[in-house]
Amino acid sequence: MTAKPRARELGIPLEGIPGPYNAITDVSNVEVGYATLIEGDSVRTGVTAVHPRGKMDHDPVFGGVFSFNGNGEMTGAAWVDEGGLLEGPIGITNTHSVGIVRDTIIEWQAMNNALFQKWSCPVVAETADGWLNDMNAFHVKPEHVMFALENSNGGAIDEGNIGGGTGMICYEYKGVTGTSSRKLPEKLGGWTVGVLAQCNFGRRYQLTIAGAPVGRHLTDDAPFTNGENPFRQDDGSLIVIIATDAPLLPHQL
Amino acid sequence: MTAKPRARELGIPLEGIPGPYNAITDVSNVEVGYATLIEGDSVRTGVTAVHPRGKMDHDPVFGGVFSFNGNGEMTGAAWVDEGGLLEGPIGITNTHSVGIVRDTIIEWQAMNNALFQKWSCPVVAETADGWLNDMNAFHVKPEHVMFALENSNGGAIDEGNIGGGTGMICYEYKGVTGTSSRKLPEKLGGWTVGVLAQCNFGRRYQLTIAGAPVGRHLTDDAPFTNGENPFRQDDGSLIVIIATDAPLLPHQL
Amino acid sequence: MTAKPRARELGIPLEGIPGPYNAITDVSNVEVGYATLIEGDSVRTGVTAVHPRGKMDHDPVFGGVFSFNGNGEMTGAAWVDEGGLLEGPIGITNTHSVGIVRDTIIEWQAMNNALFQKWSCPVVAETADGWLNDMNAFHVKPEHVMFALENSNGGAIDEGNIGGGTGMICYEYKGVTGTSSRKLPEKLGGWTVGVLAQCNFGRRYQLTIAGAPVGRHLTDDAPFTNGENPFRQDDGSLIVIIATDAPLLPHQL
Amino acid sequence: MTAKPRARELGIPLEGIPGPYNAITDVSNVEVGYATLIEGDSVRTGVTAVHPRGKMDHDPVFGGVFSFNGNGEMTGAAWVDEGGLLEGPIGITNTHSVGIVRDTIIEWQAMNNALFQKWSCPVVAETADGWLNDMNAFHVKPEHVMFALENSNGGAIDEGNIGGGTGMICYEYKGVTGTSSRKLPEKLGGWTVGVLAQCNFGRRYQLTIAGAPVGRHLTDDAPFTNGENPFRQDDGSLIVIIATDAPLLPHQL
Repeated sequence: MTAKPRARELGIPLEGIPGPYNAITDVSNVEVGYATLIEGDSVRTGVTAVHPRGKMDHDPVFGGVFSFNGNGEMTGAAWVDEGGLLEGPIGITNTHSVGIVRDTIIEWQAMNNALFQKWSCPVVAETADGWLNDMNAFHVKPEHVMFALENSNGGAIDEGNIGGGTGMICYEYKGVTGTSSRKLPEKLGGWTVGVLAQCNFGRRYQLTIAGAPVGRHLTDDAPFTNGENPFRQDDGSLIVIIATDAPLLPHQL
Repeated sequence: MTAKPRARELGIPLEGIPGPYNAITDVSNVEVGYATLIEGDSVRTGVTAVHPRGKMDHDPVFGGVFSFNGNGEMTGAAWVDEGGLLEGPIGITNTHSVGIVRDTIIEWQAMNNALFQKWSCPVVAETADGWLNDMNAFHVKPEHVMFALENSNGGAIDEGNIGGGTGMICYEYKGVTGTSSRKLPEKLGGWTVGVLAQCNFGRRYQLTIAGAPVGRHLTDDAPFTNGENPFRQDDGSLIVIIATDAPLLPHQL
Repeated sequence: MTAKPRARELGIPLEGIPGPYNAITDVSNVEVGYATLIEGDSVRTGVTAVHPRGKMDHDPVFGGVFSFNGNGEMTGAAWVDEGGLLEGPIGITNTHSVGIVRDTIIEWQAMNNALFQKWSCPVVAETADGWLNDMNAFHVKPEHVMFALENSNGGAIDEGNIGGGTGMICYEYKGVTGTSSRKLPEKLGGWTVGVLAQCNFGRRYQLTIAGAPVGRHLTDDAPFTNGENPFRQDDGSLIVIIATDAPLLPHQL
Repeated sequence: MTAKPRARELGIPLEGIPGPYNAITDVSNVEVGYATLIEGDSVRTGVTAVHPRGKMDHDPVFGGVFSFNGNGEMTGAAWVDEGGLLEGPIGITNTHSVGIVRDTIIEWQAMNNALFQKWSCPVVAETADGWLNDMNAFHVKPEHVMFALENSNGGAIDEGNIGGGTGMICYEYKGVTGTSSRKLPEKLGGWTVGVLAQCNFGRRYQLTIAGAPVGRHLTDDAPFTNGENPFRQDDGSLIVIIATDAPLLPHQL
């Protein structure tokens, strides 16, 4: 799946200097796991799991939540806000499977002696893959969540139609799960920032790449641009998980 | 279960004038359903479902969320905040079963043609019943959620060790699910306000009844008061669902 | 001052259809007034006043507050959030003159019998003009605030180095106060949205115009781009006042 | 003014162990200053200034803002939320003088080389003293703010009809500015928590003292209890400044 070239390999002049894998896993010990469900015509969904310290280290990390705009389900947000701590793996999935992912993360924590308190309120976020996936059939099962949690790794990780990103649509192209990282120069601290995104939004004409408004020119094969209502895909959404080893307090995250 | 007298029947001078049932169901069409799980030594949990317009009417109602203090899981809060709408039944359960209740409410909505949009982010809240119930055994199953959703009614509703309130502890007594209502005088509009609460907090000495600090005198049989650490039960919580027919906008709720 | 051509007159292909004045005043009855202080080398500041219903109509309007990112002083925000009402004119000025503008708006309200309640918490926002203006000399006086409040008008309004925008810097050019409006097609309701902005942020290379990344090419005469620290002007800010006649509730604003 | 006995001296059994002064000044270096304006029939107002590290030390302290309920003007709240820092003295005054107190604190900071950044957004809060004081006459002047800032002290501080508390009404008695502190036992860390409150709310029947509902019995001389509308004084408010030397991060404050 990663055989396809990444944007920099195509010569697109993106800013900044990536870490060695240009992935969220460039932040030390972060691990990512996926479960991907593709079957027949109407199963295009999955689960992405992000372990902030890797799946073997259950210590919490400082955490924060920021909503740039709009809304969506993100369980566990109230406790991150109040406690400033992220106490276990993060899950991302489709809108209608948030619950099974959340409860199964708790089950995994209980099985692995990884509960930081007597209760757990895991962070699970969603985007809606209802165009490509039948969300009301609840395809995600506990075993898929366990698979994503257990089969995580650091280093090079997959991108594309995988995990929670399997059924995404973005700028009227196929949307995906993607990742990248940036390393600050040593004189600014040398810290690393890594992101993992699940993208499910946007009209074609809004697409810019490295600052160039290419979406205005790539108008072919963009089924949503033809109609009249300009708000039709404005209810899309985007989940971004940001990890860093910079020494920040919770209220700065 | 309602054979036990309620507070007013015991002559406790509570303020205000209740509606006919002194229950959240005094607000027109509100229905409440319970699933109660009591088994052996370690199953004391359940599900409470509240249909704001009754289980047959799926129109949304205006809604709002307020956190008085502290935190807890409440799925769906982001959409209520953003949209000002509550688009289906509310669930209450134990902390580790929030996910199964949430997803099953969506399933019920899909089965009953009750989805207001192509996606649903139901409101499900929790309190931790881990002292009396083995939360990590995930006793709540989809059929319990369906039972609570289907077996709801208006009018007189049960209180006590029932539904989500089955495993509660409050002021070092057994905590429960309770309900009441108040009707404003006609000259103030005659509107009704009804509440349903799931109570899981408090040290004995903090208990007041109708303004009287009775907890300071009822010190027997209060196992948590004896130790030294005054913060031991401060991590309790309380869910209150408030319904009203007063003509309020979402930002006033 | 408005003799200079506006962006559309220069042929820049901006989206949408403006109202007749392409200004916030295209929303019915909105009036804008300015007081501009330019003197010697270190006085470059002022006050902008926006009357949502014009200076003669003191009825409140529905209102909301949104912080896209970052922070800044905006008095009155707590009451707009709670009440959903904007109860009088909005002021914009420099960071260190927010107080005098706020209290003087109350004085103007008291003089004009325009207090909606026995107290007033006016909305006054700021951007820092400390590079061009000596903010610590407190040049803004009550008479300037009164002038802006009294000398407001609808229809065509001035833009540029005027009112609160007098001392702004934006994308390493001179920043200003600007305004524009858009009218929705009749089939989408025909509502008008108008904005007035006070702009004080940005590095040159971030500048795009109508989607074109022109800032990367216009690198001359941009004194802040030469140094090493990429964060040097990230503490800028931007105030946008948005008015509309679309029928929205406070929580939708 | 402090000749009157305090509550503990009257034998009221309040909980906890106060610090040496039973005042916010028990938290090391905190200083409080007042300016009190009492004149004729309609001047009953003032300014309270709290220096978190004393008036000579301008280093910021960690800070946080919490609104228990309702709203009111509190300038500077956005920056405390974002930065987690309180960068100078706090002011409290009447609703319509918040601006003059805010700008004058900046002026004092500039004069004393006490600006932590090139701009300042001081925290100034208010309660409405409009029943006893003519708020629309703007009696608070810069010299009063300077007086409160300069004439601050630690140790024993005055309570009562003083500073911002001069015109308060509380539980239908005269309201005031008050202060107290508690010291945790050594085994819990030995930290001190001090508070200073400006109280302007409440119906008589709601008053409890040390848990006893005395307001129900002290019904004489309570002019607001006689009428019909039970909401008449519900728009009161209460400002509490809490200082502590406990090692807490901003998001915990």
